[in-house]
Amino acid sequence: MSDEKKLPTFIEVVEVGPRDGFQNLQSFIPTPIKIKIIRKMIMSGIKAMELTSFVHPGAIPQMADAAEVVRLIHRDYPDKGFRSIALVPNLFGAKKAHAAGIREVSYVISASEKHNLANINRTHEQSLADLRTIIAELPELEIRLDIATAFGCPFQGPVELDMVKGMIDRGLSLGAKKIILCDTIGVANPTQVLQIVVDVQSSFPGLPLGLHLHDTRGMGLANVLAGLEGGITTFESSVGGLGGCPFAPGAAGNIATEDLVNMVHAMGIKTGIDLEKYMQAVQSVKEEIQTNLSSHMAYAKQYEGIS
Amino acid sequence: MSDEKKLPTFIEVVEVGPRDGFQNLQSFIPTPIKIKIIRKMIMSGIKAMELTSFVHPGAIPQMADAAEVVRLIHRDYPDKGFRSIALVPNLFGAKKAHAAGIREVSYVISASEKHNLANINRTHEQSLADLRTIIAELPELEIRLDIATAFGCPFQGPVELDMVKGMIDRGLSLGAKKIILCDTIGVANPTQVLQIVVDVQSSFPGLPLGLHLHDTRGMGLANVLAGLEGGITTFESSVGGLGGCPFAPGAAGNIATEDLVNMVHAMGIKTGIDLEKYMQAVQSVKEEIQTNLSSHMAYAKQYEGIS
Repeated sequence: MSDEKKLPTFIEVVEVGPRDGFQNLQSFIPTPIKIKIIRKMIMSGIKAMELTSFVHPGAIPQMADAAEVVRLIHRDYPDKGFRSIALVPNLFGAKKAHAAGIREVSYVISASEKHNLANINRTHEQSLADLRTIIAELPELEIRLDIATAFGCPFQGPVELDMVKGMIDRGLSLGAKKIILCDTIGVANPTQVLQIVVDVQSSFPGLPLGLHLHDTRGMGLANVLAGLEGGITTFESSVGGLGGCPFAPGAAGNIATEDLVNMVHAMGIKTGIDLEKYMQAVQSVKEEIQTNLSSHMAYAKQYEGIS
Repeated sequence: MSDEKKLPTFIEVVEVGPRDGFQNLQSFIPTPIKIKIIRKMIMSGIKAMELTSFVHPGAIPQMADAAEVVRLIHRDYPDKGFRSIALVPNLFGAKKAHAAGIREVSYVISASEKHNLANINRTHEQSLADLRTIIAELPELEIRLDIATAFGCPFQGPVELDMVKGMIDRGLSLGAKKIILCDTIGVANPTQVLQIVVDVQSSFPGLPLGLHLHDTRGMGLANVLAGLEGGITTFESSVGGLGGCPFAPGAAGNIATEDLVNMVHAMGIKTGIDLEKYMQAVQSVKEEIQTNLSSHMAYAKQYEGIS
């Protein structure tokens, strides 16, 4: 945000609350409540959303209604103005997502192999082999490749940028269309974010690149600022900041969509989202799911004339 | 934080928890507990701290032990390596602070006259007249002038930069030595922060200028980043993020010192503070005062090899 460098004038906010947020909650959220919250977000102007994930319901019971959630949202919002996305961990999930009508999926590989093994019990090669099969068998699916632990790993510590770039290279060569760099444990700092996004964009010119940031150490929006300075225009965020550990105040997970939108709007950057309407979704999350959110806007007093 | 612009390599962290944080807590914190927390912060490398405020004990009973706090800390840390600061609202408080051995005081005037009236029941002219008297009667006191509501006012909304600069000009001409721009209600955004600090520094070359930021809307550290980009090297922050509304999760007040220090250290900027030792003070705040802090670092899991 120097004087010399222009920030983007518009960013795409990809809402991940119904997937990354909900899946971290223990109690099953009844499908109608999920739909109610998703609808409020779409009504506020959210144009892309991870609606759910197609995982084994034994592993994540919260996502057992994945196909039903997609069906209900596609029934209500059939047009092209809204893009539904689902996370899939493997070919089986990708097939189920495809059958449910999903055409854009997030597929996760950790930059750190140790984390990949701990998280999904696969080596890098196994994960990439699965990705290759998904793309071969379901060519209609657009793949956004989430590179987890891109800024640091809970098991190995620092992650080499060459590892991240190697994984991007492999993913793109297999056919992934977008790359999302994920700060899985919220350890990224602004200097690092700017450095990495500048380097990655210079190594892969024209690559659609997004950031998935957490606010675990309070650096979430500072890292957004660094990303904006690096020219990033796609950010993933979660309603209410859902997705961290919901029971420890301050131990935030994903950056809250309302915090992100509030900041960039105040900076004169457009999102297409009506924040006042979006706050109705936040209110529903407070009322229907939990009241202890890591969102800031959910609790901040509003003043007339100040955005 | 553009490629073209160098960030500072060192910042001064001014701890305001014992003043701005404690004064927002209803239950009186026994003096020995205050001293214990202050000592831990000094031991971690904090070199400047608002220890207390000299206000009417009827108005803020929490600060009734102001002189005793100063006495005990000055007894233990008499050398020049540590600077004790106190807030004073008027000449009476300034005299008491001076008598207690304080030589640097924070004096607050709101850029918004409406806020000044609501906060301390004085017009701008009355506040400035008091400042003139304090400086005349107590020339030994170094004045840091806190400009409250510099980024927005709860009563009037946006605050004109000319109002802020006018107040700085008046304060300096009366003899104030440092200016702290305060985002009293946490509405500042990074674009605004950069714009204002660049403008103020250009209007007042060489002015010692600091920022007092709140994290109410999650922009606290993003605003720090903007300040760093604008060349600011003095930041005020509070242990545990104390100072907001302590009972609403997320409704953060001051930026937490541990969040600030963690971020700038990760960015390669020095503070002279040993964060691990500082976290012992945070731990004491959790144990002795309250467990529901707006700090992020107070709850974030730590990983080996990642700062």
